[in-house]
Amino acid sequence: MAIVGATGYTGAELLRLLQGHPLVQASVLFAHSRAGEPVASVLPTQAGLRVDRVESFDPGALSPDVRAVFCALPHGASAGHVAELRATGRVVFDLSADFRLEDATTYAEWYGEHPHPELLADAVYGLVEVRREALREADLIAVPGCYPTASLLALLAPLRDGLIGADGIVIDAKSGVSGAGRKATESTHLPQAAEGIRAYKSAGLHRHIPEIEQELSRAASREVRITFTPHLTPMSRGILATCYASRVRPDVDAAVLTGSARRLFSGSPSVVVLDPGAHPDTLWVRGSNRAYLAYDVCRRTGRVIAQCVIDNLVKGAAGQAIQCMNVRFGWEEGSGLTMPAVWP
Amino acid sequence: MAIVGATGYTGAELLRLLQGHPLVQASVLFAHSRAGEPVASVLPTQAGLRVDRVESFDPGALSPDVRAVFCALPHGASAGHVAELRATGRVVFDLSADFRLEDATTYAEWYGEHPHPELLADAVYGLVEVRREALREADLIAVPGCYPTASLLALLAPLRDGLIGADGIVIDAKSGVSGAGRKATESTHLPQAAEGIRAYKSAGLHRHIPEIEQELSRAASREVRITFTPHLTPMSRGILATCYASRVRPDVDAAVLTGSARRLFSGSPSVVVLDPGAHPDTLWVRGSNRAYLAYDVCRRTGRVIAQCVIDNLVKGAAGQAIQCMNVRFGWEEGSGLTMPAVWP
Amino acid sequence: MAIVGATGYTGAELLRLLQGHPLVQASVLFAHSRAGEPVASVLPTQAGLRVDRVESFDPGALSPDVRAVFCALPHGASAGHVAELRATGRVVFDLSADFRLEDATTYAEWYGEHPHPELLADAVYGLVEVRREALREADLIAVPGCYPTASLLALLAPLRDGLIGADGIVIDAKSGVSGAGRKATESTHLPQAAEGIRAYKSAGLHRHIPEIEQELSRAASREVRITFTPHLTPMSRGILATCYASRVRPDVDAAVLTGSARRLFSGSPSVVVLDPGAHPDTLWVRGSNRAYLAYDVCRRTGRVIAQCVIDNLVKGAAGQAIQCMNVRFGWEEGSGLTMPAVWP
Amino acid sequence: MAIVGATGYTGAELLRLLQGHPLVQASVLFAHSRAGEPVASVLPTQAGLRVDRVESFDPGALSPDVRAVFCALPHGASAGHVAELRATGRVVFDLSADFRLEDATTYAEWYGEHPHPELLADAVYGLVEVRREALREADLIAVPGCYPTASLLALLAPLRDGLIGADGIVIDAKSGVSGAGRKATESTHLPQAAEGIRAYKSAGLHRHIPEIEQELSRAASREVRITFTPHLTPMSRGILATCYASRVRPDVDAAVLTGSARRLFSGSPSVVVLDPGAHPDTLWVRGSNRAYLAYDVCRRTGRVIAQCVIDNLVKGAAGQAIQCMNVRFGWEEGSGLTMPAVWP
Repeated sequence: MAIVGATGYTGAELLRLLQGHPLVQASVLFAHSRAGEPVASVLPTQAGLRVDRVESFDPGALSPDVRAVFCALPHGASAGHVAELRATGRVVFDLSADFRLEDATTYAEWYGEHPHPELLADAVYGLVEVRREALREADLIAVPGCYPTASLLALLAPLRDGLIGADGIVIDAKSGVSGAGRKATESTHLPQAAEGIRAYKSAGLHRHIPEIEQELSRAASREVRITFTPHLTPMSRGILATCYASRVRPDVDAAVLTGSARRLFSGSPSVVVLDPGAHPDTLWVRGSNRAYLAYDVCRRTGRVIAQCVIDNLVKGAAGQAIQCMNVRFGWEEGSGLTMPAVWP
Repeated sequence: MAIVGATGYTGAELLRLLQGHPLVQASVLFAHSRAGEPVASVLPTQAGLRVDRVESFDPGALSPDVRAVFCALPHGASAGHVAELRATGRVVFDLSADFRLEDATTYAEWYGEHPHPELLADAVYGLVEVRREALREADLIAVPGCYPTASLLALLAPLRDGLIGADGIVIDAKSGVSGAGRKATESTHLPQAAEGIRAYKSAGLHRHIPEIEQELSRAASREVRITFTPHLTPMSRGILATCYASRVRPDVDAAVLTGSARRLFSGSPSVVVLDPGAHPDTLWVRGSNRAYLAYDVCRRTGRVIAQCVIDNLVKGAAGQAIQCMNVRFGWEEGSGLTMPAVWP
Repeated sequence: MAIVGATGYTGAELLRLLQGHPLVQASVLFAHSRAGEPVASVLPTQAGLRVDRVESFDPGALSPDVRAVFCALPHGASAGHVAELRATGRVVFDLSADFRLEDATTYAEWYGEHPHPELLADAVYGLVEVRREALREADLIAVPGCYPTASLLALLAPLRDGLIGADGIVIDAKSGVSGAGRKATESTHLPQAAEGIRAYKSAGLHRHIPEIEQELSRAASREVRITFTPHLTPMSRGILATCYASRVRPDVDAAVLTGSARRLFSGSPSVVVLDPGAHPDTLWVRGSNRAYLAYDVCRRTGRVIAQCVIDNLVKGAAGQAIQCMNVRFGWEEGSGLTMPAVWP
Repeated sequence: MAIVGATGYTGAELLRLLQGHPLVQASVLFAHSRAGEPVASVLPTQAGLRVDRVESFDPGALSPDVRAVFCALPHGASAGHVAELRATGRVVFDLSADFRLEDATTYAEWYGEHPHPELLADAVYGLVEVRREALREADLIAVPGCYPTASLLALLAPLRDGLIGADGIVIDAKSGVSGAGRKATESTHLPQAAEGIRAYKSAGLHRHIPEIEQELSRAASREVRITFTPHLTPMSRGILATCYASRVRPDVDAAVLTGSARRLFSGSPSVVVLDPGAHPDTLWVRGSNRAYLAYDVCRRTGRVIAQCVIDNLVKGAAGQAIQCMNVRFGWEEGSGLTMPAVWP
């Protein structure tokens, strides 16, 4: 396998997880800014492992053995690389936002003109738990964003089963700082980020919103609009999505919601639905591809509280990409993804 | 001044803040479990400052100079001490929940039978920003809880001004671990608490709910019920309340909400209302008595997002108690409370 | 394999690592305090994995397939369990201090009377990098402590090669809070542990001292006494040992020291010796069995600075135990231990 | 008072502390990069306090009331500003390294050619505890560095009293990340800095070395050379210096060392010398101008362990500068510096 954009956090996590994969390995690492450097100096934890050097992007140099490529570039920058790689016939797992939105117009509203709209129809949205069949045939997989993964896993079951209303959904999401990427900024500088929590883009401005709405709308079979507030939380990894929705009937209680989720995810090794009353912790998923879900109903207002925790870099990015690969190539869905979290 | 329960975090914070007060000082510290110990061994940061030793509770031993007592005990345990202190004529600032709820029946639902219901009518709820006048005459002040302080400061202005609906309010609150008190437990043990965020009591079970509802109902002049989800956040101090509400008219935008809050808090030195688009950070209030508020409206759903950050141990407890004392004794409201946050 | 003391941090880490082992698995978990509970409630990250329930210690109930047992109990409590298990013929990997010291008198000085001194002669000290041959035959393996592992890996090569003096060695060690175990105490309570660093037992009182001295003395072929100061550091995992020693000759520079270590550890997959000038970070080993070493010489004083980082729960405990098992049973030394650190 | 370089962490801390000073206030803030901006946008915790705007450096614009200026600029950049300010007759408290070294040649070795060597003879080193008299007359005060402050407070007493040897001193120093300043870099990026500790410049390369050696040499009346290893520690603030030295006689025990320090610092309100056996914690000084010292002797090797904790931004920078100012102007030494730490 090859990784494009190997020196960012998502690329590094792909490399880590592939190291534990029983069937494939990373063999080529491409990165623009640090091309030519030894892997050990860019990613010290990879010193002495399978790949020695970071190279400049060159799809022509890929060996024919390389059947698939992971593309971990920023949105906008990714689409062109994906097009080149698709032209060589490789299966591409794209971790950017470039192929997640089905509609080029929506993409343009949030990200600017799409560089390769002709490829949009080929892309399959890689939330494995609900797209398993489509992924088996896909050659361009749009790996979901981290916030969408957590939000969708929490909300899809009750929405599909008609247990919650499609209007008035609020998602209050808390993310670790690695979600901001590897580039150091004032807002990720430890003295200013380590002992405080704050919201950002709280007026409906976060670019993951259209992706969440697209998939919730599909599940509800009608247009869904959400209120989504992300928060920068003083930890390295992890997302907790605390989601609020109205229930459609008074008999929708925590047990009903839990049962709905357990049915939807019964064949999904990455998802654990907790018993009512339990609360998942982002620490439980550090380094693992798991998602823990929990459902509650407020005894005073009847409002549904749906929670999901994931590791933003694993189930929210690199692990989910590998899960997509496993399904695409007919391997066990959890291959290379069975290690439990590094806890505590 | 005397402090009862001086060795918990709230008591320690009272001691710290009184050290910087220009008009009064702490002169007696009472504490049950560590009575007889030198202050320096219980609270190393107080070594060599005004008080040397922790004593057993004995209101009879108080000098007549001590006009007021801060009571920083757990709910249930506090009421009896308050009654004894009131019997000696002292003004009591009670930081427990025992005198915050006006209705003994509601108290019983959440906390058990009230030990001294006869005192309830005397108590004034100490949210200074909206009870300044009543506090000037009060001899028993119920200092608000930490979550209620943050939630109320965010929501009172728009609710009073009829800008948001009283139904469907959601408060998603994030608290630092010091909110759990000084007693070590598995859930506050650093290896399990430092790199994860999690909700708790998410089904409408947190005891601060009736206090928040009581005060919101007063502001709305009708009964308000809320959905309230607290979260244990990997930081020592601080609360961020992210509150969601429906607006009553489409012209209620961030500027309207900001203006409403600025009017309500125009004479309140502890409150800063940020410009629309800014997001307060709990780090901005570490160690300070300030609250920062901000208002946004989701451009997609019209939902109002009201944010408030406080330091749970200062504006959420000890600082607010001192602010109450300043008002009660006719001193400058901000006396001893003017130090900005320890940032970064 | 069986694990005794499975619900502490070391036991949990054994369980995590065995989950990724290609050749063996954990099949029985013993624990005293939480016997009878489902694994998922004690260790949520293990929900749905191989073992369902924690049992009371009962070596008679072990299936004959279970050839080896990991004992992760506190010192003193461990020896009796080890004796029972050895009586059934199992190979025992003991993670307590009970069999690390060769001399029962030294044990008594630091820990009290040894409960089973007759077993001491059977035990092999499990620092794989320097005891590989002896471990192949051992049936009772004393897995080294966390501080000793970091200290010894840093100092053994230059001491063996006669590059540093045996007198005057100072080890300044910094440990994450998980080193204190799972039991919550005031010193591990997040509000008091998260934003501060402090030494403890700084007068030569830490129980890992005799273990370090025993092994350094063996390497130096003379008695070595050390100054050892451990520090509680505000992070969950990791140990950095910064070691200071005098060099024996002016031509001993960073390159000479680095070369010495690279020779000693040339066949050791868990050890990476960095180039002179690099500094290892405990984050580089989070969750991994690696140790990173680095050597410097102070240009002003000629003093040698030897650094080693490990994850205290992996190479400092559970990972090292598995590494011992791999060697004992003739498997690849790194089986189940190849995953790089969870970084960042 | 005016502050030059007001928008860095040291400048911000000066502003915070002056806010609580009973006798003076900050009235002018100069900063290059953010001149013209409102203070509230650069330093949100200062919103609504005394100064509204950051200005470009212009000593001619200073009101005659401004008798003193704090200069919080990087080394090299500071000297020129200091010269300009001195030319206007102001007393200057310089927080850079530019006037700490008495010898221009030594300065040149570590920092490059000194821009204003003619001013060196005027400068007084501002470690108040040992230079109180000289500071009363000084017009150019070189405020000590953070590492030197912690190291010197720990070592000066036993060295002056001839209790420890001048050779072989090792200082293992641990600093919070704010010591690296406000500029975000990869090494201060939370995901890479929050859960790891690492040494840096471990070969005798840190620029604070000559400053420490200069002052230790003065105390010992002979040339002292040290081994100094700084560590980046996962916390925002605080320095712990763990210092190792040989004792000169076997009767030098912890009590003797403690007594020596208590004598030297008996009139120093900022220094607390703990009883033998206690260990200071950097959390005890967060936001305060205190230093806590402790002395131990290793019972196995006789080596002396001297510890000191300070807040690097307060006693290690801004607080110490204000302490210098208080002494210089004949005010109470602790004016504006009496607030205990923000603990927990």
